[in-house]
Amino acid sequence: MDSQTVGILGGGQLGRMIVEAAQRLNINTVILEEGEQAPAKQINALNMHVNGSFKDPNAIRELAKKCDIMTIEIEHVDTDALKLIQKETGVKIYPDPDTIELIKDKYLQKKHLKRNEVAVTQSVAVENSISALETVGDEFGFPFMLKSRTMAYDGRGNFVVKDKTSIKEALDFLKDRPLYAEKWAPFTKEVAVMVVRSRDGNVYTYPTVETKHVNNICHTVYAPARVNDTIQKKAQLLAHNAVKSFSGAGIFGVEMFLLPNGELLVNEIAPRPHNSGHYTIDACVTSQFEAHIRAITGLPMPANFTSLSTPQTHAIMLNVLGAQEANGELQLCKRALETVNASVYLYGKSTRPGRKMGHINIVSQSIEECELQCCWNF
Amino acid sequence: MDSQTVGILGGGQLGRMIVEAAQRLNINTVILEEGEQAPAKQINALNMHVNGSFKDPNAIRELAKKCDIMTIEIEHVDTDALKLIQKETGVKIYPDPDTIELIKDKYLQKKHLKRNEVAVTQSVAVENSISALETVGDEFGFPFMLKSRTMAYDGRGNFVVKDKTSIKEALDFLKDRPLYAEKWAPFTKEVAVMVVRSRDGNVYTYPTVETKHVNNICHTVYAPARVNDTIQKKAQLLAHNAVKSFSGAGIFGVEMFLLPNGELLVNEIAPRPHNSGHYTIDACVTSQFEAHIRAITGLPMPANFTSLSTPQTHAIMLNVLGAQEANGELQLCKRALETVNASVYLYGKSTRPGRKMGHINIVSQSIEECELQCCWNF
Repeated sequence: MDSQTVGILGGGQLGRMIVEAAQRLNINTVILEEGEQAPAKQINALNMHVNGSFKDPNAIRELAKKCDIMTIEIEHVDTDALKLIQKETGVKIYPDPDTIELIKDKYLQKKHLKRNEVAVTQSVAVENSISALETVGDEFGFPFMLKSRTMAYDGRGNFVVKDKTSIKEALDFLKDRPLYAEKWAPFTKEVAVMVVRSRDGNVYTYPTVETKHVNNICHTVYAPARVNDTIQKKAQLLAHNAVKSFSGAGIFGVEMFLLPNGELLVNEIAPRPHNSGHYTIDACVTSQFEAHIRAITGLPMPANFTSLSTPQTHAIMLNVLGAQEANGELQLCKRALETVNASVYLYGKSTRPGRKMGHINIVSQSIEECELQCCWNF
Repeated sequence: MDSQTVGILGGGQLGRMIVEAAQRLNINTVILEEGEQAPAKQINALNMHVNGSFKDPNAIRELAKKCDIMTIEIEHVDTDALKLIQKETGVKIYPDPDTIELIKDKYLQKKHLKRNEVAVTQSVAVENSISALETVGDEFGFPFMLKSRTMAYDGRGNFVVKDKTSIKEALDFLKDRPLYAEKWAPFTKEVAVMVVRSRDGNVYTYPTVETKHVNNICHTVYAPARVNDTIQKKAQLLAHNAVKSFSGAGIFGVEMFLLPNGELLVNEIAPRPHNSGHYTIDACVTSQFEAHIRAITGLPMPANFTSLSTPQTHAIMLNVLGAQEANGELQLCKRALETVNASVYLYGKSTRPGRKMGHINIVSQSIEECELQCCWNF
């Protein structure tokens, strides 16, 4: 193999799993992250990491010197700096900084998708004022979603505005953040599709999965989604078209709402590996992490590489979240390790209640058999 | 998870894949190996490795200080030193040094198995002399196998004695090595079973696979083996009984001959992960590497953990061997990465003709579909 080195902005569990995939292909990785013991650094012997913030242009510049290709495991990066550094140094950056910039501002993301005729929830940028939100309520009806345009993930940055009286609470909750409002989507299910885009612009979709959120955090993923074939294919097509509209290469997670009439709307896109794609490690030919590495380094993507390993392969992914009680995570890990048909992935993190500590993939020949094994509750 | 550290004697590809499995479970690993860039060290950030020989008692002693549990990725270690260090330091060693000692001398291994009523090829220790081998020929008939009792792997250390006239050549080939002879087993197929033994002596078997060797090196593994169910079960039982006869914990590879009458004979046992078990990474609930880590650290081994991921899961494993021509391995890696339904594992090694550089696992719903993808020849 040629000796490409990939620099990664961010060193959490997504970075860690990118590193693992890269190592299997003899590809070197260097991490930019503040913590010296960040999950991605822990499993990486090539000790050339940059201890700094992935928001700091100087730190990004330092990373650029150490790699041939830069990528991200988190979209909340300084895209102006990325564009400048790309120009200065000629380092390749995937996904395209323009794409990251469009996606990391959720309102710009929605505007871009709408412009490209991708079905999305109706949304509008709003000022941080009661009167502005009252106007939104008049137009969209209640409830509606108030969201931070930036720096929002795992539900941090979302507020459901139930009626006029909750507008003040919403503004207090999201104060000082750039806001936009979304019309409420009366979804029956949330589905998601991982999509990978090659450097030459080819787009490949993974199967449609169903996601269940608890407290706004991804809790369970069913692969494939428990919906009919038509909806599965429609979701893949919508996700395909959404990702096709962006430039650059890499893996993308596309979350969608399924409405009662069978219509699908894009909810959010992530320009990186995504929690809803962790099942791919055990259930698909190529994992989302390896697909990302292949995409950004220009390696082959053979036929079928995003498919389930066999037509009978089904999977459930469960997140292992930090426990409320002291040492609760030990019990949790033990329970994960005792789960039949499960593969366990721990991220080397110190525990905090609700923190993503790991995940497990349960694979079997039917979703029902997978479910039998996860009747215990994380 | 508790913070057990596992020390590994040997840092080749088997150690590398043990390290990967351990990392997924938040278990630290330290490697004893001469090369600073050994495959297992490359993917390991816990830079406390011992740069030395796994045959050097002082180096092993140094490793023991850095870990709670010691294990091996190669059986050709100094077992006297292991036993002494176990006594001195109280470090746990799995597999049991007594077991490694019995297995690493192939003749002692056979004697032990025979004593425990495990079916093996007929064998006898022989002197390095023409007359001794002529006597063996009179008793076993020709051809018979002449093998080095120790330090033999990938066929290095085996010689087929076709007739009386080839005895001198055999002795020249194996000169100065401790020898034993084996009666020729007129096998129709070679099959193998990975077996894992827990610290409390429970024994679990993986599916029976079929192995094809080319130039004495494992070339292709078919999982499950293309034999009827009875033979599959008989092979698992024989492998189970063989491993049950040894003390200690860990993963074992049991290679067997299938004779024309359906009889099975143990050919060789390896007290470590084995090339014939690489398919488990993609085709089984738990890989041989994780099974080893779970076994030696006392982690749970839930029902079904050695099974194929689904009843329909089939796999073919192909080794990626160093090419004869310059840069041939680049072509080889590219071809591996282009293979449909394949997962690629490269070991971070510099190339040499015939060297094990990596492997690929092709998974599909039937062996025929797997075979369709690997019609190209490594």
